Formats: sequence, C-alpha cells, structure tokens
Amino acid sequence: MKPMGPIPAWFGEEDGMLVIGGCGAASLVDEAGDTPLFVYDMTIVEAQVRRFRDAMPDALHLHYAIKANPYAPLLTRMAGQVDGFDIASGGELAMALDAGMAPDRVSFAGPGKRNDELEAAIFAGVTVNLESEGEGRRALAIADRIGKTPRLAVRVNPDFDLKGSGMRMGGGAKPFGIDADRAAALARAMIDAGADWQGWHIFAGSQNLDPMAIIETQAATMALAGRLSDAVGATPRLVNLGGGFGLPYFPGDHALDIRPIGVALDSEMDSLPDILTGSIMAMELGRWLVGEAGVYLTRVIDVKLSQGEAFVVVDGGLHHQLAASGNFGTVVRRNYPMALANRFGAAPAADPVTVVGCLCTPIDRLGDKVALPPVEEGDLVAIFLAGAYGASASPAAFLGHPDARQLLLG
Amino acid sequence: MKPMGPIPAWFGEEDGMLVIGGCGAASLVDEAGDTPLFVYDMTIVEAQVRRFRDAMPDALHLHYAIKANPYAPLLTRMAGQVDGFDIASGGELAMALDAGMAPDRVSFAGPGKRNDELEAAIFAGVTVNLESEGEGRRALAIADRIGKTPRLAVRVNPDFDLKGSGMRMGGGAKPFGIDADRAAALARAMIDAGADWQGWHIFAGSQNLDPMAIIETQAATMALAGRLSDAVGATPRLVNLGGGFGLPYFPGDHALDIRPIGVALDSEMDSLPDILTGSIMAMELGRWLVGEAGVYLTRVIDVKLSQGEAFVVVDGGLHHQLAASGNFGTVVRRNYPMALANRFGAAPAADPVTVVGCLCTPIDRLGDKVALPPVEEGDLVAIFLAGAYGASASPAAFLGHPDARQLLLG
Repeated sequence: MKPMGPIPAWFGEEDGMLVIGGCGAASLVDEAGDTPLFVYDMTIVEAQVRRFRDAMPDALHLHYAIKANPYAPLLTRMAGQVDGFDIASGGELAMALDAGMAPDRVSFAGPGKRNDELEAAIFAGVTVNLESEGEGRRALAIADRIGKTPRLAVRVNPDFDLKGSGMRMGGGAKPFGIDADRAAALARAMIDAGADWQGWHIFAGSQNLDPMAIIETQAATMALAGRLSDAVGATPRLVNLGGGFGLPYFPGDHALDIRPIGVALDSEMDSLPDILTGSIMAMELGRWLVGEAGVYLTRVIDVKLSQGEAFVVVDGGLHHQLAASGNFGTVVRRNYPMALANRFGAAPAADPVTVVGCLCTPIDRLGDKVALPPVEEGDLVAIFLAGAYGASASPAAFLGHPDARQLLLG
Repeated sequence: MKPMGPIPAWFGEEDGMLVIGGCGAASLVDEAGDTPLFVYDMTIVEAQVRRFRDAMPDALHLHYAIKANPYAPLLTRMAGQVDGFDIASGGELAMALDAGMAPDRVSFAGPGKRNDELEAAIFAGVTVNLESEGEGRRALAIADRIGKTPRLAVRVNPDFDLKGSGMRMGGGAKPFGIDADRAAALARAMIDAGADWQGWHIFAGSQNLDPMAIIETQAATMALAGRLSDAVGATPRLVNLGGGFGLPYFPGDHALDIRPIGVALDSEMDSLPDILTGSIMAMELGRWLVGEAGVYLTRVIDVKLSQGEAFVVVDGGLHHQLAASGNFGTVVRRNYPMALANRFGAAPAADPVTVVGCLCTPIDRLGDKVALPPVEEGDLVAIFLAGAYGASASPAAFLGHPDARQLLLG
C-alpha cells in the first residue's frame, strides 16, 4: 500500500455518501448529467478568502491568479471576493473582464506577451507587468501607436528564492521578470517615457508549506521593493508580494498555518521603508484559494485483476487531471488524496488497488496501490484537491474523450 | 551546453531557411496566418509507409494508431495508406469513420470503455478489443440489446515485455488486456455466446530502438497467439502484433533499422503454428509513421539575459508541445531536436540559450542550454519530432492562449 495525503476537512458524509457543499456526490452527478465531473464548492473558496482576511493585515490586498481555475461561473463569483485578478495571457484578459473585474484591478504577467496581447491589455487599461527591457520598449511603442498612457509595472526576478517551494520562480537565472539589479532602471525609463508606473511584481515561488520561509521571503521582498523604489525615486502604487501559500497534497504534508505570516506581515507593514508609505501591498494567490474547493468525480468502469493486482478503471483520467497522474512538473509520482464517494468513510479492503484512467496509455495512473473500501463497477471515485490546475491544465483532447463537466456550488 | 538528438533527415535549407515539404518555414507561417504552427508533411508519412512496406512481409498489415495524431486532414489521407485504424475512444471512432476508414478495418482498444462507447462501436461494426471479462459481458449485453452480432477480439497482457521500451504495456500486472492465462477462456466464452470473434491484440510496448528486442518480442507474440488459438480451438481472423517501432529523439539515440525486423518476421510468418494459417498478421504503429513528419514552428517574442544566462521566449509552449517540455511520461527532461528555422544550418553562437514557452510557469521549458545561431526577436524556432503526441496531447486551454494552427503539406 502507498499512503495518500490528507483529505481536506471540508467534506462530510451522509448515509455513506460523500457530501460536497451540502449535496451528495451521486446527486451532483445526476444534476450534472454524467461523470467525469469537477465540482467546485464556492463556500470553501469564500471560507479561504475569509481565513486570509482574518489572518492578514487589513490593508493587504488579495489578488486571484486566474490560471489556477478560470471556470467562468467561479471567476464571476471570485470578482466579488478579491481585490484584483492576475492574468497571464490575452485569453485570460478577456475572461477577467467578462467576469466583471474592473480593468484597473487587473495585472498581466507572463514572460512571452505577444504584441496583440500587449495592445489589448494597454487598450483595456490593465497593468502590464514588464518582464524585460524589450517588452518595455514594445509596450511604449504600442501605447504610442494607439494613443493610450500605458499602466506599467516591473516584474522583478528577486535575488533570493522562496525556500522549499513546489515551483521556484525567483533566485538564479530565470525567464521571469528582470534581474533585481536592472529593475529600477527599467521603471525609471518607463516613467521618463510618460508611462503610468504602477509598481513592482516580485514573485519568488509557489506551493510552500513553511510559514517561516514565507515570512522571510516577504520581508526580503518588501526590503527589495523599498531599495528599488528608492533607486527610482518614486513611491509605487502597488507592490505585488507574490504568493507562495501551499496546500497539503501528499503524505507528510501539513496544512500551512497562515496566522504567523499575518502577524509578521502586520509588523513589516507597520515599519515599511519611507518610500513605500502609501503603497498598496498585495498578495497573489491561486491554488490556495481554490484547490481544496474542487473534487473530481469519476465512475468506475471496470475492476480487473492482473497477476494478482487489482486495477480500478475509471471514466476519467489524465486528460482532465494531468497533475494527479504525476505528469505536471513533478519528478516522482505520488497519490493525490482520493476516496470512494459512495462508500465514504468505510473501512478499506484488505488489499490496495491501483486506480487508472480510461486512456490507453501507461501514464494514465491516478492512484497507485491505494487503500479503498471494496470497489465495484459503477462506484464513484472522488479525487480531492481538484480545484486548481485541473480541467484547464490537462490535455483534454488527448485520445478523443469528452471534456469533463463542471459544476459550481454554494 | 546540453546536447540535442538528431534533426530528422527529411528537411532541407534554402537561403538559410528551413524547408519543409518544398516550402520555406516563413512562407508556411504566412500561409497559415500565424505562429505557433504545426506543419505536417504527408510525403514523409508516405515515405515511412513505403519504408515499412518495403521491409516487411507483403502479407503483413499496417494499422495506424490514430491517437498519435488525429488531425482530420491527415487522417483522411492516412485512410488510403494503411490497412486499418486503431482507436481508443468513442471520439476516435467518429474520427476514424469520418476519415473514410471502413468499419471492419477499425479496432477499438482501451482499458476503460464506457457502455455508450461500446454501443457505438458494436453498432458501427468495428472490432472491440476486450480488455477484461467484465467488458466482454457488457459488450454481449449491449449487442443483444441492440440486436447486432459484435465483432470482438481479446487484448492480451502478454507474459513478457518489450525490453527497452519507452512505454511498457505488457509484462507484469497491467491495466491493459487480460492476463495471457485467462485470454483463451474469454475468447471461447465470446465465441460460445455467438460473437464474431476477430482474434488477438497483443501490445507489449512502444518507442523502442532495438531491432533485436522487437524481433524477440514479435516471435514471442506469435508463439503466444498460436498457443492461445490452440487453446480456443479456432483460427483468429487477425493477430495484432502491437507496435514498438521508436524514433530517435535524444542524444545517443540511433534510428531503428527495420530491415532485420522484416527479415525475421518473414521467416516467422513462413513457419507459423498451424492454427494461425490463414490469420492476418498486423502491426499497429502511430509515432513511427507520423512523428518525424511534424515540425512545430514558434516565433521568438523576446531574448533576455538573467544573471548572464540567455533566455529565448517563444509564443508557443507546453500547451501545444507538452512532451517537448518533458512533462509527458518522462522522468528526466531532455531536449527535443530544435533549430532556428530562419538561420537553418548556420553556425551556433558561442553561448547556449535556454528556450522557454510563453506560459507563466517554470515547467514551460522547451530547450535547456541549447546551441543555436544568434537569436533575435521575430526569429522562428523549429522543434522537430512534433508529428506525434503534440497538439492533441497537450493542455491547450492552460493559461488561455490560442490553439496552435495546423497545416498538412504534400
């Protein structure tokens, strides 16, 4: 048997059925029409937002990185919950505006913005986080051509990283942002060229479960923003401190306690460098806000034995949940938490089972030797932590299966 | 500098421009309208088919596994080139029939076939490769309900694997097919129930570059098919020997010489077990037929320095070419062969560059410290071996970028 990480604590059980947002999993499948199905519970997202607001300084802004989950009904609800959206493409720009977010609360980061994307962003009046001097020149030329004053911030590749992160995005040579030692010059050049300078975007890493690492990185980020602003000689409107809040996916992971981060940030924000007085501080979160709110429900098509090992074949797979198959930036495949939705909480069978997706490829493995109650054809398997980097981050067209259905509750 | 594998020999150069199917890369981009663009050269596919026919016994059938590349114009052309299509979903069933392939030349494998897929397949008259006893029961029940005689084959999990394969699909406990020691009983049960038994599907592995390993596996496969058929007491109409032919992607890989495989197969097919006299032998290939025919063209948006390292940012990325980013079943990321299409064949610059996609994630890396000629904004990067498991096997919706364009030449 291989262990699983913890099932998020938001979910209940009634008559042996997994309950999501007050509804039984089987009735949610009936409502949606079929499996495979992503269910997102907005009340969980809202609870995470409240948890954030309760723990963090009042003045800290919360941005949602829509790449984590751009499902339109969720985005629309999210627009009323957070202070801004962070986007990463022209497509996400359209989604952010469609969701009702005001353009002046949208920031666009991404190492490879095409000219048509820059034009759409500048025209809409969203902030463009510049990733290089070359992008700054292109943005100015486009703004000049279309007769708009561009809102420009500078994305900084910090000279430190967020230790222990799942994804490092700062420290060392990186394709993201420009090196800290050239950031002030770029900001100054943009101001001198007449741009509406918005500030700094400093993103050191994501998916971190160590409060101390996050506290240290945030302190270093604010100090860096202070030094850079001093060098520019101007107070930034906004300092995006990045994200970093992780979720527990795997055995041994513990939920991040954000309260000490809030306490430390409160103290940091009380003693900011003079030049940052009046700046808005923001955090940009994606996964932490929506990850636990999602459950992927998939039906058991077959249970089969091969050389004494039991395989549970489901109607979903890596075409909807690439990350759970271990093929999304992970070196070693580990099991996402999963359960039998229609025997939720029942005792596991004596022997573990391997849960595979319906794709005809050996990499479509969703659960390796997991402990589940006895499984039969027609049962519903729930894979947790499916709210972030699921449906939109998977190769949906691979092997010609239907898209997953999606349902927003709450 | 990190090495690359060999650029396939099919491509030429004219005035410094990469030539694909007689056309310059830049003019192909103009024709398609924009980058990122997959170009597939059908003459390369046809040359591979000829190479296969020349080397293999005349009686051997060639099937195309459409999962490798289901681009509709390519499928339509492919229908005239091969003796059958192998499909892996109800979606691929529709694609195969739309492409004009006769239903009795289509076989459907896949460990998780839903009832609606089985029904569509049985109704259409394609062969269903049964993956378990349970699937056999479901197929019979559906056939009975809709009043059709189902064409059924049995997919066997062989008691050997194809040594050195990129993807092992036989040997040991597997979700694919049923164990060899239960295969004859399943075939017998289907025949006794009145099904139109089609034979065996025995797929031991794929992406193999060792002729001797393939020869040994094919011999073992035919011997197994003989033993199983003896146990059933019936001659199978078709024995699908699987695939296995690999392509050289990485440094140190050498192109597979298929001629000794053909010689060995010729001799094997001359001395088949009596029960297989009259059986059709087929190989099922995907990647080997189409992989080298595809080139992914993506434009350089930015060239930037970070801490002395040069990053080339392109407008494509893992949302179109997940495999080239190293996130598709590979443990260690290695560079796909790539070149600067508009300075094809030029001498490399002194320093290597890292080529990253436009996605705002550190896993969107297409070329790690590769030797390219000096690169500028606007240049065209060509990534080779993009004909298989590219556009259709990548998370196209991730981060909201446009789909790649596709173009079939020849």
